[in-house]
Amino acid sequence: MKGLDTPAGAGYSTADAEDPLAHFRDRFAPSPGLVAYLDGNSLGRPLTASLENLNRVAREEWGGRLIRGWDEVWLAEPVRLGDLLGRVALGAAAGQTTIGDSTTVLLYKQIHAALKLREGRDEIVVHRDDFPTDRYVLEGIAAETGATLRWLEPGDLTPDAVAAAIGERTALVVLSAIAYRSGALADLTGITDLVHEAGALMLWDLCHAAGAIPLQLDAWGVDLAVGCGYKYLNAGPGAPAFAYVRAGLLEDYRQPIQGWLGSATPFEMGQGYRPGPGIRRVLSGTPPILGMATLGPALELLDEAGLDAVRAKSVALTEHAIALADDLLPGAELATPRDAARRGSHITLDHPEFERIMPLLWERGVIPDFRRPNGIRLGLSPLSTSFAEVEAGVRAMAELLA
Amino acid sequence: MKGLDTPAGAGYSTADAEDPLAHFRDRFAPSPGLVAYLDGNSLGRPLTASLENLNRVAREEWGGRLIRGWDEVWLAEPVRLGDLLGRVALGAAAGQTTIGDSTTVLLYKQIHAALKLREGRDEIVVHRDDFPTDRYVLEGIAAETGATLRWLEPGDLTPDAVAAAIGERTALVVLSAIAYRSGALADLTGITDLVHEAGALMLWDLCHAAGAIPLQLDAWGVDLAVGCGYKYLNAGPGAPAFAYVRAGLLEDYRQPIQGWLGSATPFEMGQGYRPGPGIRRVLSGTPPILGMATLGPALELLDEAGLDAVRAKSVALTEHAIALADDLLPGAELATPRDAARRGSHITLDHPEFERIMPLLWERGVIPDFRRPNGIRLGLSPLSTSFAEVEAGVRAMAELLA
Repeated sequence: MKGLDTPAGAGYSTADAEDPLAHFRDRFAPSPGLVAYLDGNSLGRPLTASLENLNRVAREEWGGRLIRGWDEVWLAEPVRLGDLLGRVALGAAAGQTTIGDSTTVLLYKQIHAALKLREGRDEIVVHRDDFPTDRYVLEGIAAETGATLRWLEPGDLTPDAVAAAIGERTALVVLSAIAYRSGALADLTGITDLVHEAGALMLWDLCHAAGAIPLQLDAWGVDLAVGCGYKYLNAGPGAPAFAYVRAGLLEDYRQPIQGWLGSATPFEMGQGYRPGPGIRRVLSGTPPILGMATLGPALELLDEAGLDAVRAKSVALTEHAIALADDLLPGAELATPRDAARRGSHITLDHPEFERIMPLLWERGVIPDFRRPNGIRLGLSPLSTSFAEVEAGVRAMAELLA
Repeated sequence: MKGLDTPAGAGYSTADAEDPLAHFRDRFAPSPGLVAYLDGNSLGRPLTASLENLNRVAREEWGGRLIRGWDEVWLAEPVRLGDLLGRVALGAAAGQTTIGDSTTVLLYKQIHAALKLREGRDEIVVHRDDFPTDRYVLEGIAAETGATLRWLEPGDLTPDAVAAAIGERTALVVLSAIAYRSGALADLTGITDLVHEAGALMLWDLCHAAGAIPLQLDAWGVDLAVGCGYKYLNAGPGAPAFAYVRAGLLEDYRQPIQGWLGSATPFEMGQGYRPGPGIRRVLSGTPPILGMATLGPALELLDEAGLDAVRAKSVALTEHAIALADDLLPGAELATPRDAARRGSHITLDHPEFERIMPLLWERGVIPDFRRPNGIRLGLSPLSTSFAEVEAGVRAMAELLA
């Protein structure tokens, strides 16, 4: 079996030879021994430039400039990188996006802030099938504040289902743009519009969307968004997350974790917290500089490729995976929409034998993701995944099932 | 003027030649052009081994193992490193310390958890002179929960002042072990005992203490503690913070930012948050792996040197700095206790001209820290600071004032 670094197109498929983005694969750091990496939706691969930048920031900025690094570079990084992310991947004008904390912590801040922005309303809509952190953090906030959670049940991620759940008591709707398990892409504009008609705020979890599909948060009027840095943004394990707050909300926006770097005058060390200007009020503690050093080069790569081209390849990769699965894995059930317009950049296949074959796939250097009870997710990261890899992965699954 | 990398003892002082820890300076990465780095209490210097480990984790673990890194290494890192920190620097048995988030976020979690552990009590004692993040986060929590803040005023960080502020309504006392501005070391055992006599919980902010003075959190019965990774723990700008929770409190401990990795069964993806086992319930989101990669080697260095030896050198360095200031800076006022037993590893000098000379010091490669309105802090990190550096720094200050 050929390795991951086999020249594009030399292997299983001719699609790589025709792929205009194929050359971007050379920008990723080598992963010796891997045959097919199909988990870019859990943890993206590192760019060589990101590893170099991390090393440079650690040696030259930290080691060389020491405390001077804060004034010279670092204090501006959360918003500089946020603005870059906003422009490249979110459709967000400057001053509305910042980097830091984890997705969970940013969800916590944003949900609390939303409840304050819609004081007098006490319901939050959430989906039973959403990623655990989204549900868990909402359960905690509901217990703390007395807010009521209105649950959408499995299958209910449609505008009609959302319409039935919202009303004049709804403060906020929290949903994932792309479902972590099925890969289904929600009707982002349809749902956002409905939520606004009810006078509520819309918070999109973009963990599986940012860097994979073109987003237009400003144009769509999205209120709040969060997402992680380690999937299609390729910033590394546990990389800092991002938060978007629509400019029109910032003046009245108050989040509960009041820290010095989110205050108006951090270096005055004065009495009494006053929130910082604009998006900086989302910050709490000292920004994670080393953790952010890998994000910039990955965003520049996305910018170079363009999100529309990334999306086109993503669609082609998932089509390829579905066609291969239909041919080679007749016993597996596709848990992802067949309509490419309704899915993100991963597909999920269910089969009772998948739990058994997962360790055997890993032994062969074929690395998809597994979600209990019986789902294998193939996460296809458009700039680092080849068509040949997808084929190698699905063929390995077929051989092990046979 | 000689540079930072002048061999120990060759310069301004013979104390370096007699310093049993002098050789540890060779373990830190070079900082070209620096004459005196006197801000180890704001941002510690990187170890060469930490830079190498960061590079290794990024290239080999992230790039090489990809998603497999979570099972193989990363999921255990917050508690493995927490246990190591606990043993080396906190006097904490295993299972009570974890790494992650920022100090601000961990303060937020710990304070909320403390209020739940002391339900029915509604007062929190805080110091007017404490670091802004501690005060700001408490102001936010007080506004959220209705708790009342009882303020200790400047000068009041004595057991008597604490005794006067606490009573049967006190849920929690939040204080810094070492004051960020003056460097004064609080009476940790005396205050902790008083707080316990009142039935309240004690939360120590150890930002300026961890890695600089020997701590015995278990033996002293401390309930909760937090601290940052980037001062005397040398883990880099914005490094993840740490939280300590006394074992006896863990069963009933509930923090409000309920995330998947703090839950009992993160990979079940099930309904309903249940807190994870032991100290893991402090976690929320995905752990910041790159940000943690610099901490292990620094803790191993501290372990090799031993905290008692570190403290002895710290005392000698601050004595040296005070003697030099007395001689060379007659117009400056020492804002730090003269009794070495009552201070940490930095001293603060006040002078109306200090704001003016700060940029001139930086130009000369002499890097202390400035705190408004007129304080220069000399932060002396025992494993990386030489006596010669202290002398070079104070002499430069004297020349610029003259």
